[in-house]
Amino acid sequence: MSMIPNSKLTLIGAGPGDPELITVKGKQVLEQADVVLYDALVNLEMLNWTKNSAEKVFVGKRKDHHEFTQTEINEMIVSFAQQRKHVVRLKGGDPFVFGRGFEELAYVQLHGIPTEYIPGITSAIGVPGLNRIPVTHRGTSESFWVLTATRSDGSLTEDIHIAVKTHATTVLLMGMHKLADIVKLYLQNNKGDTPIAIIQNGSTEHEKIGIGTILTIEEVVRTQKLSAPAIIIIGKVVSLRNTIEGVVTNHKAP
Amino acid sequence: MSMIPNSKLTLIGAGPGDPELITVKGKQVLEQADVVLYDALVNLEMLNWTKNSAEKVFVGKRKDHHEFTQTEINEMIVSFAQQRKHVVRLKGGDPFVFGRGFEELAYVQLHGIPTEYIPGITSAIGVPGLNRIPVTHRGTSESFWVLTATRSDGSLTEDIHIAVKTHATTVLLMGMHKLADIVKLYLQNNKGDTPIAIIQNGSTEHEKIGIGTILTIEEVVRTQKLSAPAIIIIGKVVSLRNTIEGVVTNHKAP
Repeated sequence: MSMIPNSKLTLIGAGPGDPELITVKGKQVLEQADVVLYDALVNLEMLNWTKNSAEKVFVGKRKDHHEFTQTEINEMIVSFAQQRKHVVRLKGGDPFVFGRGFEELAYVQLHGIPTEYIPGITSAIGVPGLNRIPVTHRGTSESFWVLTATRSDGSLTEDIHIAVKTHATTVLLMGMHKLADIVKLYLQNNKGDTPIAIIQNGSTEHEKIGIGTILTIEEVVRTQKLSAPAIIIIGKVVSLRNTIEGVVTNHKAP
Repeated sequence: MSMIPNSKLTLIGAGPGDPELITVKGKQVLEQADVVLYDALVNLEMLNWTKNSAEKVFVGKRKDHHEFTQTEINEMIVSFAQQRKHVVRLKGGDPFVFGRGFEELAYVQLHGIPTEYIPGITSAIGVPGLNRIPVTHRGTSESFWVLTATRSDGSLTEDIHIAVKTHATTVLLMGMHKLADIVKLYLQNNKGDTPIAIIQNGSTEHEKIGIGTILTIEEVVRTQKLSAPAIIIIGKVVSLRNTIEGVVTNHKAP
């Protein structure tokens, strides 16, 4: 297919939740978009930045809501772009961190439509950081490993069987429904004392954090009523937040 | 020490190089800072956003330049803050990804000075992404592991001996001086065909990218004259950029 002038897809990372954690460039492009397709994890306040004429389409997963397939989303982007529109695909976190962003970008690019990617703050780094948990720290952790706990077929990722044996900080996305399996695996490796944190609705006013060890975390989840979507951070860096006074919690946004 | 009103440290991630890849919040706070301590990897254009009265201090590593120790930097932040100043510590990428940011934050917080962290786009994710290399992709990579190749004692990180055996996308920072060791390790594991990319000065107009396999990358580095600082990405996702037409290179900033 030949190139269509003015048509474009820009894939933008919205960041972890706080609208001000989008990039300057991401915000500028969002303000110019003709169409915005957005996911469930995107803070709706960002949609107020768009032009009055901009069309906004929710394409995320939500209860009692028609769910678009990835193919439908891909085709929708191409269809809008072929009407000479600048389409913004706004995704929570970073589009290339388990966001299926590359699938969309490749599909659209192969239809002759120009594409651009604007990275976003991934929750895997930003959300622990805002809670005083650095993914790396000299003398404590010299690497971090980010995994999706649940594979596309619903099973627990194999990589975590290796991660449990390393000193890497382990960050799990989409892991709440696999927490019992994760705990079991760490216990089998005699790592019951490993510090673990679970953070729900990170960087927003609804943020909740639970801290414990592998041995205690399931009880923490029950008492604090933590649920998905949340991120799980496992490793010694989790304990660092206790080494400084006054954990600051004033970073939360609406 | 007691809390001093108006004193504050804000640790800000400047992102990978393009000044517009800082967050909206990071830029706003930078505009209000009384003092900015910045590193070598920070794009100097960002300093134009500060108040006229703001004091700007370079504390990074650079040839023929006095090098501040971490202790000196820590003490300088406290000293400025105790003069009732809002100090911004501007670091390339994200402050908690090998930036020693947590050391500064903890030191300052323990002196009774309020601290805040504003995450930044880490080069480990954003720079490959801008070059059409997604760190994760369904069916290709369900995790990514970010490591500093060079440990504080100068040796090659041990974690990479494990990473080489996994399917994780491996991203190495500070790895250019260890490239020969890394290549040797992958060859020992019969992984000579593994795709690898090296990106220098990512997201800026000076960006250079070299693509190859473990077997060819040292020759690519020589012919393209790639040097540190650069990031190294190893894994099947590197090949994805060849699956789409017209790799867009118009994302570069001054």
